[in-house]
Amino acid sequence: MNRHTDDFPAPDAWHRFHVSYGETDCAGVVYYGEYLHWFERARSRLIRDRGMSYSEVEGRGVLLPVRRAEVRYIRPARYDEEVFVRCAVSAWGRASVTFGYQVWGPPDRSVLLAVGETEHAAIGPDWKPLRIPDWLKALFTV
Amino acid sequence: MNRHTDDFPAPDAWHRFHVSYGETDCAGVVYYGEYLHWFERARSRLIRDRGMSYSEVEGRGVLLPVRRAEVRYIRPARYDEEVFVRCAVSAWGRASVTFGYQVWGPPDRSVLLAVGETEHAAIGPDWKPLRIPDWLKALFTV
Amino acid sequence: MNRHTDDFPAPDAWHRFHVSYGETDCAGVVYYGEYLHWFERARSRLIRDRGMSYSEVEGRGVLLPVRRAEVRYIRPARYDEEVFVRCAVSAWGRASVTFGYQVWGPPDRSVLLAVGETEHAAIGPDWKPLRIPDWLKALFTV
Amino acid sequence: MNRHTDDFPAPDAWHRFHVSYGETDCAGVVYYGEYLHWFERARSRLIRDRGMSYSEVEGRGVLLPVRRAEVRYIRPARYDEEVFVRCAVSAWGRASVTFGYQVWGPPDRSVLLAVGETEHAAIGPDWKPLRIPDWLKALFTV
Repeated sequence: MNRHTDDFPAPDAWHRFHVSYGETDCAGVVYYGEYLHWFERARSRLIRDRGMSYSEVEGRGVLLPVRRAEVRYIRPARYDEEVFVRCAVSAWGRASVTFGYQVWGPPDRSVLLAVGETEHAAIGPDWKPLRIPDWLKALFTV
Repeated sequence: MNRHTDDFPAPDAWHRFHVSYGETDCAGVVYYGEYLHWFERARSRLIRDRGMSYSEVEGRGVLLPVRRAEVRYIRPARYDEEVFVRCAVSAWGRASVTFGYQVWGPPDRSVLLAVGETEHAAIGPDWKPLRIPDWLKALFTV
Repeated sequence: MNRHTDDFPAPDAWHRFHVSYGETDCAGVVYYGEYLHWFERARSRLIRDRGMSYSEVEGRGVLLPVRRAEVRYIRPARYDEEVFVRCAVSAWGRASVTFGYQVWGPPDRSVLLAVGETEHAAIGPDWKPLRIPDWLKALFTV
Repeated sequence: MNRHTDDFPAPDAWHRFHVSYGETDCAGVVYYGEYLHWFERARSRLIRDRGMSYSEVEGRGVLLPVRRAEVRYIRPARYDEEVFVRCAVSAWGRASVTFGYQVWGPPDRSVLLAVGETEHAAIGPDWKPLRIPDWLKALFTV
């Protein structure tokens, strides 16, 4: 059994990289604000893996500004470690969507470093609430 | 009546600055990850205003790594706007402390842009849980 | 004699702050990329001190994208230290402007931590070169 | 003939990624400070490709703090574009090493977006100058 797929929504995507110096702080570990950058890259990756790009989503008139973000930090990540950030849609609202995240670290993405979620309003180019269009929902259906 | 002091713990501190270009993103507003940097600066400011510095807190053997961070984004902040981030201790645990935040924007810090909180474990230099020492609690007493 | 004013163009401006955790890296000092953020804040401060804002400069149709940036790192800056970044126009081209920078650290901004410069093209909203307008030059005249 | 290999030292390494939202600014393009983060990732990649890691270099007692960084920005990079950052050692000093960089963008890494270099002092754990050891030089020999 692969614990990575337990209790995590599908379809998911993985953003994989090595921790850079610029992401660490003087406590010797990754700075807590960097995780939101990682979540964003994993989110973009998910959309790209599904055959679109967030630019195209915007081009179709749907902006998804974050209205809430939460991160739970479990274990620190360190310079040069290989980190895997996983992302999937965890919930749909009428005019919102929530993405869930897991951050896995070495050895071989076996240690859970953090979990989190970001809740996004769906708005139009006029910044007014927009009902989630069917094509967007379909994009994230297995 | 000053709404800024309603329902916000005391003593508080304010971190004040103008939004920089590097903090914005291509949607024309401040990137969602920047708020955690702002919270950190307001937190440091609070400790400094109380007569110590976070370096000194660490020097006394108390590290306060973040174990949970949450931000609720209400209205966007834009380049060059004057922003005020307010911070105070909102809760004490046996071996943890939570800071609360408000972000206020123009005109004249009258508009609430975001709220948030960060929950910190208290640990020793050996990264083991540490009971919050009295001097730390006293530091944040009015 | 104040060494701070020797060999540095006028009018100048100072951006002053305490180094945050998020600006440091796991070597225990400020990450080298942060200095460009500091330069930008000092540059904005200079424009603001002269009675305008970079937003207004843009609003008048002049964009100033950076075409070259250089930083010479002399001594490291550390968490919580009070740092002073100084900025002034150091040279004008027909369709460009160069800003010079000094970064001073403790004790009491007596130690030179870094120097640098950024060279900016002047372009219009169409991204085509633009002759530096007289009002912009006048803005930086003592 | 492949222009990518003209006039660029060997061995080289490529860091490849998609531009994230957090790297852009309100001018709609990548913020000028982000290039130094990209350079660092390409530099780490180069060392890793050569069979070591910067952590190991440090573990062997050689620190390589940046003492000068320069970036020439040629064309802007935009959100979601695939960018390729190339890095190689461009010069050795007695107690220093210089890395050179090229940043290539779409379509298909055919457009040169920026070039740059970073000059690093070689120092020991005591922050004193250190003659570049032979094993480090050998690491970057084809």
